[in-house]
Formats: sequence, structure tokens, C-alpha cells
Amino acid sequence: MNINMIFKVIGRLLLLVAVLMLLPVMVGVYFGDDLKTILSFLGTALVVAIIGFLLNMQKVKIRTFFTKEGLIIVALSWVLMSFFGGLPLYFSGEYKSLIDACFEISSGFTTTGATVSTNVEILSKSILFWRSFTHLIGGMGVLVFVLAIMPQMKEDSIYLMKAEVPGPVFGKIVSKLGDTARILYKIYLGLTALLILALYLAGMPLFDSVVHAFGTAGTGGFGIKNTSIGYYNSPAIELIIGIAMLIFGVNFNLYYFILIGKIKEFFRSEELKWYLSIVGLAVVVITLNIYSAMAYPFPESLRHTFFTVSSIMTTTGYSTADFAQWPLFSHVVLLVLMFIGGCAGSTAGGIKVARVGTAVKSALAEIKRARNPKRVLTFHFEGKLVDIDLMKSLTNYFLLYIFTFAIMILLISLDSPNFTTAFSAVAATFNNIGPGLDVVGPTGSFAGFSDFSKIILIFAMIAGRLEILPMLILFSPGTWKRT
Amino acid sequence: MNINMIFKVIGRLLLLVAVLMLLPVMVGVYFGDDLKTILSFLGTALVVAIIGFLLNMQKVKIRTFFTKEGLIIVALSWVLMSFFGGLPLYFSGEYKSLIDACFEISSGFTTTGATVSTNVEILSKSILFWRSFTHLIGGMGVLVFVLAIMPQMKEDSIYLMKAEVPGPVFGKIVSKLGDTARILYKIYLGLTALLILALYLAGMPLFDSVVHAFGTAGTGGFGIKNTSIGYYNSPAIELIIGIAMLIFGVNFNLYYFILIGKIKEFFRSEELKWYLSIVGLAVVVITLNIYSAMAYPFPESLRHTFFTVSSIMTTTGYSTADFAQWPLFSHVVLLVLMFIGGCAGSTAGGIKVARVGTAVKSALAEIKRARNPKRVLTFHFEGKLVDIDLMKSLTNYFLLYIFTFAIMILLISLDSPNFTTAFSAVAATFNNIGPGLDVVGPTGSFAGFSDFSKIILIFAMIAGRLEILPMLILFSPGTWKRT
Repeated sequence: MNINMIFKVIGRLLLLVAVLMLLPVMVGVYFGDDLKTILSFLGTALVVAIIGFLLNMQKVKIRTFFTKEGLIIVALSWVLMSFFGGLPLYFSGEYKSLIDACFEISSGFTTTGATVSTNVEILSKSILFWRSFTHLIGGMGVLVFVLAIMPQMKEDSIYLMKAEVPGPVFGKIVSKLGDTARILYKIYLGLTALLILALYLAGMPLFDSVVHAFGTAGTGGFGIKNTSIGYYNSPAIELIIGIAMLIFGVNFNLYYFILIGKIKEFFRSEELKWYLSIVGLAVVVITLNIYSAMAYPFPESLRHTFFTVSSIMTTTGYSTADFAQWPLFSHVVLLVLMFIGGCAGSTAGGIKVARVGTAVKSALAEIKRARNPKRVLTFHFEGKLVDIDLMKSLTNYFLLYIFTFAIMILLISLDSPNFTTAFSAVAATFNNIGPGLDVVGPTGSFAGFSDFSKIILIFAMIAGRLEILPMLILFSPGTWKRT
Repeated sequence: MNINMIFKVIGRLLLLVAVLMLLPVMVGVYFGDDLKTILSFLGTALVVAIIGFLLNMQKVKIRTFFTKEGLIIVALSWVLMSFFGGLPLYFSGEYKSLIDACFEISSGFTTTGATVSTNVEILSKSILFWRSFTHLIGGMGVLVFVLAIMPQMKEDSIYLMKAEVPGPVFGKIVSKLGDTARILYKIYLGLTALLILALYLAGMPLFDSVVHAFGTAGTGGFGIKNTSIGYYNSPAIELIIGIAMLIFGVNFNLYYFILIGKIKEFFRSEELKWYLSIVGLAVVVITLNIYSAMAYPFPESLRHTFFTVSSIMTTTGYSTADFAQWPLFSHVVLLVLMFIGGCAGSTAGGIKVARVGTAVKSALAEIKRARNPKRVLTFHFEGKLVDIDLMKSLTNYFLLYIFTFAIMILLISLDSPNFTTAFSAVAATFNNIGPGLDVVGPTGSFAGFSDFSKIILIFAMIAGRLEILPMLILFSPGTWKRT
């Protein structure tokens, strides 16, 4: 294994994290935060920079690396980012333990949005900014960011990007990897800037606009009000964020097609069609369900349903209505959306629409095959033949997903009051959504879990964000055996 | 499609059902049941016999049939058996609607053991006998029975047996299919007879011994007491049934190996090792959990845990303790067992140990592959290479399982008080277990559901018993299009 290369990449990443940590320092100074909090960020940035500098000094003889190193770099990066990113929260004294602080920041980077804070409104501005800023960084991927700003990275880095960008397949949109990363980041930041402007024009204060735009862009969900977006009670803001969440749940490669004028390519995307169809269908059935079962006025039903469906499907987790009060049928529809998640290559979590769509087509092909076993039946997704290799990796993803899920629920159940809490805590973190049901519902928090459970859930968030395999490789003993 | 052949096989099956229905008539006469109940069985038997006779008159030009016809015959047989088998219960007046009666008997044939009866102790002896007898018939499979007693069936019938015998692969144990079926049935009935004797010697009344032996052999779970096996409060009876359930959860082909003296083959079975390991592990962790969390005496903990684990893992559903009172961790372990189920080729339901074992091995191979992508990694189950075709059918089984499960929960949630009830009602019927949790828990019943929900759950039971595909083929419009 190319350990030196791993250290070097991690070193560069930490240098980047140290630089980014200066932003909350500036925010803290501007808003006059406690000196202790500001110094916590500054001190941590310094320490991280030194460690990053030392690791980056590594002399690297062989610059090539492969899948295994790629997976380890990505997993290790995310674990270290969550740890170092959490330190200022702990040092500031605004979080009661190191585990709590690291939980909060891994929830940030993984764009989960699950919180241990029972009252976010008393947190310092620099901490509120940093929490939301980690959504923005984590949404597109940190190593993608490293690639985007460091032109001298080799093409081998595709292993990093494959591991970090969500979805079953990753394709470069232009021939050079670094260019691909830069184009994606430009689209991402451009859309985020537009969103800040839109929210500000809709009447949100500037600071609120910025942090909510970060949370929306990363489909994260950290807010700065205890009642989330519901606080603003503004249909315009809800509509903007509702649509924006959907936009950030789409594969970013498609926006590149728009940029270069290939509008047709955009609308030809099969995953996009599935995505919009699922959202549309869910909005219709839930609106009808809450309209008929709860005697909500129809426009109100539609408004809250659209926002909630968009928020859950994209695994963001913002809320305007307490959907815990909705009928069971609506809950089950939302639960299904939680697992499906957004599109591959977007900032959203979950299993991803492309995988679910391929799986549905495979199941339908099986039914057809049983009807006529002599016909050779193949099927396509996005115009490409779904071959054996793709099916194999899809199958193994599903299997790893199910087994990891089951083991985590077993462990969390040792420390949960009931099944709904245990199940939804794991579902909400593993799918990077944020709020679950019951104790961890939209009005609750993850504060009540033991340290052991919080560590399991941190694992769930990072494993979910990186689509499982990198974390399993990092923590399986076989990886570290000498060969 | 060979419609004539389908009618002919169904005709023979109905003739068999009519003959079998004479048994509860005799039981009713012996125990002096209401004349109305006895006549209900007799009248139904007559009608079924006439329909069977007419269908069997079909002139069949082409005697061959293929997978598609095999799947349709099996699915249609099970639907019709549930319908005709339920008629006497409805005519007797002891069940309040036709849907309830059919629910009860499809629960019987599919060896689910879910009941709509809130007080089984007031039912007639003939009905109690018939309910449990359907477990016995359904456990091994009805068409296997037809094959076993009708020597003139062609070798094509392997399609029937493949569709009806649970598990990912079906192998003939001797060269002739009819002989295979007869050997399996002899082993099955022989073990059941031994069990009746054992229960009788342990102090159970003869009638009770017979019906409980039927319920155990089919891993069904219908009892004749409202408190199930707990009523007898006898450690000996609990131990006998506890061990017997495990025995009937093993692939019957393995018993054939014992019969012909190949003891080594028996113990070499990989699925058996997984099965016993899972049972052993579950017994240890649940015993420790309830011993430490509830301060149960240790021997009591072990006794109730062993019985419950055996009952749930084999999807039987008998109970001695109200496990609803156990801690959450134990519930989650039991829930995992519910989904795993028994061995392929046994009378148990669930996903089957062979499939789960193969899936675990596949997931582990994926982790190894990620560590070293250049190595070609293959893996074996039961000494056989798990090739592409096997993985493909495994994958599609899992996908159909998940999608069918999700759609059924959505439909049931329209009519359920909470998620636990909806989820566990579908899990308990689809996996052919019987009791779920909350409203449908070990002390509850399925009586409260609407007719619509009961029809969905009947579909769930039959689809679960036949491993999904046959029922989907029967009810998908494409099957009935002319080509």
C-alpha cells in the first residue's frame, strides 16, 4: 500500500481545512462572538495547519495509487475532517462533550443535518456559520475540492472522485479530471450564490440567507432557528428553498449540458425523469391524504407537502410543518422517499434514484423472463446496457446497505426507548437526512443517545455519505495486513 | 399457453382437496360438532369434487408445459385452495365473513398461522382440525403431494416443484421426480407421526397432540388455546416442540442423506451450519439480554428464549412467553430472524438461510475485491460456485421482495393505527410467521383490518409462501396477452 501517498493527500486536505476554518473566525469577529469561541477556531486552524504541513512534507517516490488507496484516503479524510472540524465546537464550551461536537460536524460534512443541540438559537454566529459551511463543503465532496484547486494532481485521482461522488457510476464530463472538478464546483457555487440572492430578495436577513443557502446547496438541513424554515412563515421563502432543494438533488453533470447548450441532453436523462416522476407522484398522494384525512385547506396541504417531499427526497431535512402529525400513509410514503434519496452525482444522500430505477427495471425484466424463459432479456438505463458488472456492483451495494443497516439498528437498540426511534435514527443518519421520528423527530434531537451510540451514528453518517465501501475498507482488519 | 393442461392439473388438485376435506367431517362426527358445521365441510367437498371432476375431464393434446405454466398452476392452485378451503368455515357460521374464512385458511395453507379469530377455544373441533391440517398439507406443498400420489405425472412437473418448494435451488434427490416427491413426503409424515407420539407421551391430550404436531411440522403455528403452547405450562412439551420446530426448519433432502446412511453429507451442509449458528447466537444474546435487563431467573430466560427463537426463526409463531414485554434489543434480534427464516427445502418461510448466507458471502467478497481489484474473486456456497446466473436470480428475488414489501406496507398503512402494526402485519404474513407486534402481536389478532387490507395480506401470505414470482406472474396483465 502506498502509505506515503495517502499521508500526502491527507496533508493537503488538512491544509485546506485549516484555511477554510478562518472563515468562521472572520464571521465571529464581525458579529462580536465570545473571544473563547473565536480563539477555538483560530487555535484549531493553527494545529490542523501544522499537522497538514508535516504530512504534506512526506517524500513520495511512487505517485500512482489505486482503488484501495483511493477508498482509504477518502474514508480517512472524512473521519479526520469530522474530528478536527468538531474541535472548535468543543473548545468553545458551547457543546458539552467532544463526541457531541464531532457528531455535529460529521453531521455537517456528510450533509445529514442531525443535531445534538436542543436549542440552536443560543449558539454563536461563528459556530452557526461553520456548521452550515461544512454542508457546503461536504455536499460536493472535499477531495473534489482539493482536485478543483490543485491542478498538479494526477489522473489517478479519479479513484478519489469515484469514491467521493455519490452514485453507481462516475463519468468525467471533460477529458481532464481537474477540469471536470472545477466545472462542477463552479456550477455548484454559482447556483449557491443565486440562491443567497433569491432568499435575500425574498426578505430573509443576509446571514440567514447565506447559511440556509449553504444548507440547501449541500442538501444538509442545519438551520439557525429551532422551528427550521417554518420560523419565517413565508410562502415565498418556502417556495424558493423547496425548488432549490430539488435543483441540488439533480446530477450536476446535467447542468453542464445546459451550460454548453445541450438542453436536449438534459431532458433526455432517464434518472431525471424518474426523479421528477417520484416527486410528483409523492406530492399528489400526500396532498390528497392530508387534505382528506386532516381537513387541511387544499392550498396549505399542497404547500407543506411540496416542501416536505422536496426536503425528504433530497435528504435535506428542513421542515415547515410538523409532519409527525400527518397520517400514517403519508409517513410511509416519506419513509420510502428517505431511502430512495436524490440523483447520483448530486449533493443528496440515500440509495439514489439511478440505483432504484435500475433495480425496478431489473425486477420487471425478471417477471418478463419468467413468462418467456427462452427470450434473452436485456435492459438499459440512461441508454446504456445494464451488464453483469453493473448488476453485480448494484447487488453488492444493496447487500452491504442492508447488512450495515441491520447491524447498526441492533447496536442502537441497546440504547433506544423504542423501535421507531432506533430504526429512524439509523435511517436518518445512514441516508444523510437529519431528523427521524419519535425521540429524534423534527422537533427532537440526538442529544439523548449514549456516547457509544453517537459513535455508531457518526459511522452511519460517514458510511452513508461515502456509500459504505470506503468506511468498511478503512475499518476492516484485512486491509492493514502486510501482503 | 397450455390452458387445457393448467385446467387439468387444477382439476386433479381440487379432487384431492375434496377428498382431504372428508377428514374434518370424520373429526366433526366423532366429536359431535354442530350438524351445520359438518354439513358445511361435506357440502363444500361435494362442490369442489364436481368442479375438480369437470376440469379433469379436459382433453389435453399437448402434455408438455414450461416455467410460465408451472408458475401459473402453482399460484392459481394456492389461490383456489385458500378460497375453497375457507368455504366450510364461512358456511358453518363460525367465521363472520367469507374474507375472514379465506384469510384463515390461506394463513393455514401458507403455514403462516395469522388468525382473525379472537377466541379459538370456542371453535368446533372439525374446524380446529382443518385449520391445522392445512398447515400439514401446505408445509410440504400441495402439488408435491399431487406428484407424490399420482405416478403418471410427467417429468415436466419439475417446474411445479421448483415453484412450490421454497429456496433458491431445487434438486431432485433421486432420478425420478415422482420418487423424489414420495420420499420427501414419507420423511415428512414419518417425522410428524413421531412428534404426535412424543407430545402424547409428554402428557398432551391426543387431539391436541395431533393438531400441534401438524402446526409444528408445517411450521404454521395455529393453536387451539388462546395462550398458544403457554397453556400447557410444561417444560417437556415446550422442549419437544422447540426442538421439533428446528427439525422441520431444515432442508428435507438432508434427512434423506441420513436415511441412506450418508451421515457425513448431513453434517457437511453449509446451510445447516449457518442455520444452527444463527439459532445458537440468537439464543445466547437474547438470553443474556432478558436475564440482565428483566432480572428473569437464568433457566427461565434460557427456556423461553430457546422456544421463541426456534418459533420465530422457523416462522412457526407458537409462543410460550409474551415476548412483547422483552427489551428492544431482543425484539430487533427476533425481527432479524423473522426475515432470515428457515432453510431452503424445509417447511419454513422467510428469505431462507441459503439466500442470506450466499448474500453475506457475496458482500464479503465485494470488500475483498475492493482491496485488491486485480484478483478475480469467486466464492462458493454448499461447495458450488456461485455463478452469475445464481447471483442474478438471488438479486432479483431480493429486489422483488423489497418492492412487494414496500407496496404492501403502503396499502396497509391506509388502514393501520401505527407504523409498527402496519410493518409487522406485512412482515408476519409475507414471511409466513403469524403474529406480528402491537395490534397484531402474540396476544392480538388480524380481525380489525378492513376487507381490502385482508385481501392484501392474503396476497402477502401466498406470495411469501411461493417466493413471490408465481403470484406476480398470475396477476400481471402481460401474462394473459395473446402472443
